[in-house]
Amino acid sequence: MPPITSALSNLATALRPRKGEMTRAAIVEAAMGIAARDGLEGLTIGTLADQMQMSKSGVFAHFGSREDLQLAVLKQYVQRFVEDVLRPAVKKPRGLPRLEALLDRWVAFLAREITLGCIMIAGAVEYDDRPGPQRDEMVSIITGWKAELLKAIRQSVQEGHFARGTDAQQMVFEIYGLMLAMHQDARLLRSADSAKRARAGLRRLIDDARSRAAPASVSMRRPAKRGAASRSRK
Amino acid sequence: MPPITSALSNLATALRPRKGEMTRAAIVEAAMGIAARDGLEGLTIGTLADQMQMSKSGVFAHFGSREDLQLAVLKQYVQRFVEDVLRPAVKKPRGLPRLEALLDRWVAFLAREITLGCIMIAGAVEYDDRPGPQRDEMVSIITGWKAELLKAIRQSVQEGHFARGTDAQQMVFEIYGLMLAMHQDARLLRSADSAKRARAGLRRLIDDARSRAAPASVSMRRPAKRGAASRSRK
Repeated sequence: MPPITSALSNLATALRPRKGEMTRAAIVEAAMGIAARDGLEGLTIGTLADQMQMSKSGVFAHFGSREDLQLAVLKQYVQRFVEDVLRPAVKKPRGLPRLEALLDRWVAFLAREITLGCIMIAGAVEYDDRPGPQRDEMVSIITGWKAELLKAIRQSVQEGHFARGTDAQQMVFEIYGLMLAMHQDARLLRSADSAKRARAGLRRLIDDARSRAAPASVSMRRPAKRGAASRSRK
Repeated sequence: MPPITSALSNLATALRPRKGEMTRAAIVEAAMGIAARDGLEGLTIGTLADQMQMSKSGVFAHFGSREDLQLAVLKQYVQRFVEDVLRPAVKKPRGLPRLEALLDRWVAFLAREITLGCIMIAGAVEYDDRPGPQRDEMVSIITGWKAELLKAIRQSVQEGHFARGTDAQQMVFEIYGLMLAMHQDARLLRSADSAKRARAGLRRLIDDARSRAAPASVSMRRPAKRGAASRSRK
């Protein structure tokens, strides 16, 4: 039965990369768990092979080095973040609805990570003075995400939801601070209300930029200044 | 000359503890540098002995264990923080002047740490899921410092500098976020303006709590609500 053998052989060849991809995906999945728990630097081919009940060389067949594996974890992280946070949010109307969806989903995403720890937040400390491709990748991920937030804030200004003088860079800085505080409070201090506090801070930031946009005649004259509301009432 | 020998011997005895203390202080000083660079977990008796050109047993004579050494570093860190930030600030008048001094000095302290990294901020990530005396010490330090900030905010309310409904816990959470963002931006993203951004965020927080306190007749009626200013002008 040479034709059948040949067909089976072809099928096997066709399936081989797919099986390889599945194994690769399973390895990355396990690696993400280890990296969340022990940090990206705590991720070793050895620990991973143990957990996967594979040989080290079996893992090396998929990832040439620990560095490749770490970069694959970061790539997978970004893919998940884009699917869970960015993609659904950009379906919302431009401006404030989209920004609010981005922030809501980000808090929810971070809240799910809290049990194990966030690879990116822990990684920022691990790699901040460790040059190399992992650090470059982290910087590129955070810079890219900040650019998305900046865009959403600037669109909120364009749509008239936020005051014209809103400092988008400053707002992104403060948003990031709230997320970092949420992570530290929940992880180190075991605070139960850190997500609630982060949301309250985000609300304050948004309300502040909105309230200055509200009475157009006033906010248009002094768009960049803070505290204009209280001064005008003195 | 037995009396002189005896006097020298007494002097030597009297000096011995002081010399021991000096060596100990020098070891802690070196350990602080290593911990700032490599994290508290990166601090080992071996690295430290190398740097001090001492034997490991020489270091062990002062610190029974690596854990003792890490705790001594944290203790020294707190002492420096108290001297640089807390003590000068509490000389300022109760309320806003004192709170502003605390925050000003904290930003300046953190700005000086940025080159190497902050032991506490990096440590929060290192120890957040690593139970033990180091973690307990970090939690106690951060909780203690947050209590000082809470007190200063509550006094600002008592002095009438901040609106009565000011949520002091929320304010502390947001202040911490700004400091964490400053550290991450400066360390990972190499932003040159992170201290400036942190100060702008602190200013916004303070102005917000102040502006709601300013026109007493209005703020007393709706003390806890945000955006009351803009609503009242609609």
